[in-house]
Amino acid sequence: MIYLDYAATTPAAKEALDAFQKLSTDVYGNSSSLHDAGGKAESILRYCRQKMAELLSGEEEGVYFTSGGTEANFLAIHSILNGLPAGKQRFLMTEMEHQSIHILKRHLEILGFEVDLMKPNASGIITTEILERHLRPDTGLVSIQHANSETGVIQPLAKLSAYLHKRDVLLHSDCVQTFAKIPVGIDELGADALSFSSHKVYGPKGVGAVYIRPGVNWKPVYPGTLHENGLKSGTVNVPGIGAFITAAELTIKRMDAAYLKHQELRARFLEKAKARKLPVSLAVPDSANSHVLPHIIGCFFHSFEGQYTMLECNRRGICISTGSACSAGYHEPSNTMKALLVPRELALQFVRISFGCDTTSEHVDKLLDVFEDMMHEKGDHRIDRRIKTYGS
Amino acid sequence: MIYLDYAATTPAAKEALDAFQKLSTDVYGNSSSLHDAGGKAESILRYCRQKMAELLSGEEEGVYFTSGGTEANFLAIHSILNGLPAGKQRFLMTEMEHQSIHILKRHLEILGFEVDLMKPNASGIITTEILERHLRPDTGLVSIQHANSETGVIQPLAKLSAYLHKRDVLLHSDCVQTFAKIPVGIDELGADALSFSSHKVYGPKGVGAVYIRPGVNWKPVYPGTLHENGLKSGTVNVPGIGAFITAAELTIKRMDAAYLKHQELRARFLEKAKARKLPVSLAVPDSANSHVLPHIIGCFFHSFEGQYTMLECNRRGICISTGSACSAGYHEPSNTMKALLVPRELALQFVRISFGCDTTSEHVDKLLDVFEDMMHEKGDHRIDRRIKTYGS
Repeated sequence: MIYLDYAATTPAAKEALDAFQKLSTDVYGNSSSLHDAGGKAESILRYCRQKMAELLSGEEEGVYFTSGGTEANFLAIHSILNGLPAGKQRFLMTEMEHQSIHILKRHLEILGFEVDLMKPNASGIITTEILERHLRPDTGLVSIQHANSETGVIQPLAKLSAYLHKRDVLLHSDCVQTFAKIPVGIDELGADALSFSSHKVYGPKGVGAVYIRPGVNWKPVYPGTLHENGLKSGTVNVPGIGAFITAAELTIKRMDAAYLKHQELRARFLEKAKARKLPVSLAVPDSANSHVLPHIIGCFFHSFEGQYTMLECNRRGICISTGSACSAGYHEPSNTMKALLVPRELALQFVRISFGCDTTSEHVDKLLDVFEDMMHEKGDHRIDRRIKTYGS
Repeated sequence: MIYLDYAATTPAAKEALDAFQKLSTDVYGNSSSLHDAGGKAESILRYCRQKMAELLSGEEEGVYFTSGGTEANFLAIHSILNGLPAGKQRFLMTEMEHQSIHILKRHLEILGFEVDLMKPNASGIITTEILERHLRPDTGLVSIQHANSETGVIQPLAKLSAYLHKRDVLLHSDCVQTFAKIPVGIDELGADALSFSSHKVYGPKGVGAVYIRPGVNWKPVYPGTLHENGLKSGTVNVPGIGAFITAAELTIKRMDAAYLKHQELRARFLEKAKARKLPVSLAVPDSANSHVLPHIIGCFFHSFEGQYTMLECNRRGICISTGSACSAGYHEPSNTMKALLVPRELALQFVRISFGCDTTSEHVDKLLDVFEDMMHEKGDHRIDRRIKTYGS
């Protein structure tokens, strides 16, 4: 099987699994217990917190561990909104955010918070002009993903955070797709809160983290929460956190080399597709003004519905995706496609190819072979027939 | 180190860690992805759901996996309350519930739910008479722990659920301490919803489960949630769940033998303590009418503050606890002690000794030696001086 869906999840690194195994056996105490078994776990937890802070060039007391990226988004955004003064609790988010933030939006609205949505420009970018149009005097927090999970487009967070801070507005950024792929430095990005997930960086599933800049006022979603300095309840998963930090360190050590490798693979895919005259186009064309994560290729394979392309690839042993795994199975254009104003029929032709540690140029070539085969097999089938047959 | 705090957490079983390692390597796909890597994960998840249902003599569609016991309690109770008709959303709980349910109580009250508390009788038991006194016409859900984490006292759930069902009231039970320690059969207990935790049964931390009887109406805490049939958001931790189920199966296979071993160890501790004239008394005396988890001894070591006893044991290489690890560090009588109307000074003398797979009679004897040493060392120190010195 050729796995080209690393943006959905990654296999855990051997080093991370070894750490998990060792910690589960040797440091199994409950980190809240006051005896030595608990103390050992607590000191590993403290080490992990320091290490995570170091990886982000941040401060130890800003790091909170969670059960994953979704919970990180839930707790970071909701806790910060709770801490804002009345009259400043309006929340602004992009339409391209991960499904978890869209789910949180509905929850917040039920609780009485006001939430606004903003679309990016045609390049998938949020600009200060877009912010200007959407900020209200009572907007207190904005959430802008660091990079999109489907298009790979990276947002100019440094510029946006500077703009927001001048207007006394806080910025949260979902860094689940960017952490350990490109530098995520607290001060460089200027964000006030960031979310992370372990299983996207070769760590175990069920672990994530939030960074909230010390000094930012927040209040627990569940008042009285005892763990993670009040942010999150429940026995702390120290072995999982240790494995996450092990994986994160390793992945960041290999980050620059991986970035270059993925850039080459991306160029290879796009150039070869063009040379072979395959009807492939990027969902957001590369431009001088935009930056993308090179390991993510979000594209249309024209004339085939994305779900059909994905299944045909799967039949031939290659795993690609039709977008975020969290929305897979929902046969509707994704939030990102809608935000980019991609027409429905085209949006349904979207596929995402994403590279990782084991991806080689042969994998890319094999994927192109499958695409080419699909073109040949298509023969005189009408495009819209394919779409209908494999449609909803 | 002699670990006698298995009620706080257990070391993960080798078999569970092997399953975790294998699943993280071979079945790492995102269970929401529609390709084969995702399909493999989805089919393991389905297998685990069926197996969990089997272990509970329940139905597959009633099983939902969570990130732990705390989240299981949060989601089960809140989702069921959401599903109750207006005018039937009042929530009744015992004062002895786990800290997580007390935290949820505050959250629910902020959201506008009405919550009532009930105390047990002197034996730590909730009776139908107590229920009768506390039920209101608008009470829709009651939460009663299956057994207390500090005293080990088991509640007569079958009787209580029958009483509640006749009055059209649902029952949730926190089974975190009882699962895989005594039989937890859905129909025998008659509860409508149950919560479980992996790390109490030799599984990994960061995993739990909820059982909601199919047919019980519930509504997501976060509307729009896509995973776990709408109960919980976020990438499903399939390797962790596989490891949990492996541990649960194993622990249940060994349950009867462990029960007998723990009964013997418990009797040995109590008899030898008496023979050595140690001032030890159970927080809830054993009686013909009450049942306790034999692996938990919740007792007062009179004349020593619990925290001092715990630290002295720790200094001599034995880990015991002063109560629930989730409240450790908070130098106040626990909710359970308060619910049992134990006077403050006595409540602070509480310690919990809890046995597990590696506990031997030698461990029990060594603990008694430490207690005896403490008595000798006490010499003519005044009791209240000890309490003051090591007090808050």
